[in-house]
Amino acid sequence: MTENKIVIVGLGVGGFSALLAAKKTSPDANITIIERRNYDMFSPCGLPFVIEGIIPDLENLKHKVPTESMGVLKLLEHELRSIDTDKKSVQVVDLTTGTEKGIEFDNLILAIGSEPFIPPIPGARELLGHGVYTISYPEDTGTIINAAKGKKHAAVMGAGPIGLEVAVALKAVGMDVIVVEMLDWAFPKALDKDMASAVSKTLKTLGIRSLMGKAVEKVIGEDHIQSVVVDGETLDVDLLVAASGVRANLSFVQDAGIEVGRFGITTDMGMMTSVKGVFAVGDCVEVTNPLSHRPWSSQLANSGYRQGAVGGTNAAGGYATYDGSFTTFVSVVGDLEVAATGFNSYFAALYGFDVVSGKAKGKTKPDWYPGGKDISVKVLVDSITGKLLGAQAVGTGAAARINVVAAALKGGLTVYDLAEVELAYCPAVSETYDVLTKACDFAVRKMNK
Amino acid sequence: MTENKIVIVGLGVGGFSALLAAKKTSPDANITIIERRNYDMFSPCGLPFVIEGIIPDLENLKHKVPTESMGVLKLLEHELRSIDTDKKSVQVVDLTTGTEKGIEFDNLILAIGSEPFIPPIPGARELLGHGVYTISYPEDTGTIINAAKGKKHAAVMGAGPIGLEVAVALKAVGMDVIVVEMLDWAFPKALDKDMASAVSKTLKTLGIRSLMGKAVEKVIGEDHIQSVVVDGETLDVDLLVAASGVRANLSFVQDAGIEVGRFGITTDMGMMTSVKGVFAVGDCVEVTNPLSHRPWSSQLANSGYRQGAVGGTNAAGGYATYDGSFTTFVSVVGDLEVAATGFNSYFAALYGFDVVSGKAKGKTKPDWYPGGKDISVKVLVDSITGKLLGAQAVGTGAAARINVVAAALKGGLTVYDLAEVELAYCPAVSETYDVLTKACDFAVRKMNK
Repeated sequence: MTENKIVIVGLGVGGFSALLAAKKTSPDANITIIERRNYDMFSPCGLPFVIEGIIPDLENLKHKVPTESMGVLKLLEHELRSIDTDKKSVQVVDLTTGTEKGIEFDNLILAIGSEPFIPPIPGARELLGHGVYTISYPEDTGTIINAAKGKKHAAVMGAGPIGLEVAVALKAVGMDVIVVEMLDWAFPKALDKDMASAVSKTLKTLGIRSLMGKAVEKVIGEDHIQSVVVDGETLDVDLLVAASGVRANLSFVQDAGIEVGRFGITTDMGMMTSVKGVFAVGDCVEVTNPLSHRPWSSQLANSGYRQGAVGGTNAAGGYATYDGSFTTFVSVVGDLEVAATGFNSYFAALYGFDVVSGKAKGKTKPDWYPGGKDISVKVLVDSITGKLLGAQAVGTGAAARINVVAAALKGGLTVYDLAEVELAYCPAVSETYDVLTKACDFAVRKMNK
Repeated sequence: MTENKIVIVGLGVGGFSALLAAKKTSPDANITIIERRNYDMFSPCGLPFVIEGIIPDLENLKHKVPTESMGVLKLLEHELRSIDTDKKSVQVVDLTTGTEKGIEFDNLILAIGSEPFIPPIPGARELLGHGVYTISYPEDTGTIINAAKGKKHAAVMGAGPIGLEVAVALKAVGMDVIVVEMLDWAFPKALDKDMASAVSKTLKTLGIRSLMGKAVEKVIGEDHIQSVVVDGETLDVDLLVAASGVRANLSFVQDAGIEVGRFGITTDMGMMTSVKGVFAVGDCVEVTNPLSHRPWSSQLANSGYRQGAVGGTNAAGGYATYDGSFTTFVSVVGDLEVAATGFNSYFAALYGFDVVSGKAKGKTKPDWYPGGKDISVKVLVDSITGKLLGAQAVGTGAAARINVVAAALKGGLTVYDLAEVELAYCPAVSETYDVLTKACDFAVRKMNK
């Protein structure tokens, strides 16, 4: 029996999940993990809540993976330098000593994650670390917390989940916060403008100024940031957090002759790249959008977890497939829960769908039962077939509704089907006629016209 | 144009929904509503919470239906006496005067609901109203609240949603409470024994004694209840609430030659009975179980609402179908949320399925984020195809998970599909690897063996 040498590069959620799956599929596989950091896993989605003080200790976000008891070799503080796909080996450098070494593999799993993207704005990259920060690693929270101390004016670039969660956190620790988003509304990739208005309202209530449809044009400062120019207006800031999305650094992947698409490393349904025996999972890969059947980006932990399980299983000689991602997500802006799945109206139209939507506002509980909270849901459907294309929800229980739609999308259900799904009712928990069902019924009514 | 005379008997959730749908489908239809009560709708699922004091005023549960502005004739305090399907007329009695009259119809919608079922236990029916009570109407809560005043010992027959919610309510107002359930565990029609153990634990914590797998054999008392005999043991009680399920009184329906099945009035997919132009919706009907394709009972408000919409649409000349019910439900036992959909193991086996299950315990949030609550999920799948058969959940967010499974059941998804559904993740709201996904993965692992 030949031993299966598996090398996993990166111990994020994708790498971790790949490790578990590989070990389960082939307990005897010889697994080596390469990780640049000097600690095991951490939970990036928790970072804003460390700044806010909800998570009291940064160390809580770090998780030890019991690699020793698993019989897995873990090389921390080792960085991937190059991949030789012919010789089936990777070159890694020990960051503590600077020495390089080659490690051979039968199967390689690239779970190299992504890096924050800083837009090419004059001054932004130059002042990185000097008032301009990204938030991607546990250490970043300490840096930002320190930078915020005794300072008043913060700006955040990007009104996606991380940007808004950081904005709320900085406000919570006492700063004046401005959010700048190039697109016209909050969560522009996931929400429609009408649904995003609840987010704007919440930001306003929290006292966070939001500048939507406006760009940071310039970052000014010598040794340290002093101000930013937004839409011609100069705003004094002590601190700018860039939350303009993430991108993987794929130059050495391309150098190795591994195919890279518009959104990341391309893979087949088994998460194998264009090179046999080389797999890729997590933030660094391009996924298929099951609605458009076209390439798509899904840099989410839940996607990374499933991809890792598939890649790890296959690398270990098992069989599993990944069907693509509807990019189902949830975020919180203060107390406002925001969730979405599938396409929003912009992307649905971009991919050629003629959209009919249904939207409903309601409460989580009947009005005669105490404690009900506001919740709004919008569903988008194809005007010809009634097939679900996506949904958005804001308010308490947003994720709960969106997860139902995620299952419906997975099954290729129509809005007629989803309207017929009888959702669990008890006045202490829910409404008889849930806002999701109502939104579906409204869409059905428009379809029937 | 001939006018469509629609008569709706019963203004519960089914009748109400039928009314809305009929009105929407045919604004000019001539609609008459017959309702026995002297007020419009009410919310039966809220009744236990009135006893508990969570809903301060009984009147909050009553809802006025704006029939006048809708141009609908509403005859309150009128009771159906007989149906003449040949002459297409119903005979109703005015309960205030005792006078009878006939009302002609083109289409009739029977939404006559159900009555609490009192098992044929010696003494139980005899002492009804004298220490033995049912809970079905708003008035019943007042009766029970009064009966509880200054008294100490209560017993509840039946450990379904209503029985347990009433037990918790009576405990909350200071009584000692014993729950007696003939079957071996709580929610026996919906949960498996292992999942019901969380309910037993909660009852114990609340100080409610539960006697499972035991029957009330006798109710003792002359003018008023004094004790009950359970499994040979005599227990002093001041108050016994019978929550042993509900049954519709269908004798006059059968007398009219309308077909009645084991679980209620039989209908086609359009909710039409065996008699053309006569529809039936809500608690009084037999539904199809989409898993067994066999008759089934679904006396739930969410089912009644959908059935009403279908029956009302068709009675008004539109077209709609009802696909059957997975009996998706949620209840609360104190702070414990309990939800289920589809078959439990007992019914799955009864209908010939060989079941594989997956079960997982977890938290609603990551362990490093404050405020996570316990949640357990069990999924049941067909061992050959992997097709989902049902799911059960106990703990915070139980309904949220069960609703996802309800959508999956509707789409005929397999556990392989459901395991792949990426559920929304944000540490403030959920886990990366949700307990539902975990339960599915466990089932998949067993399938692959």
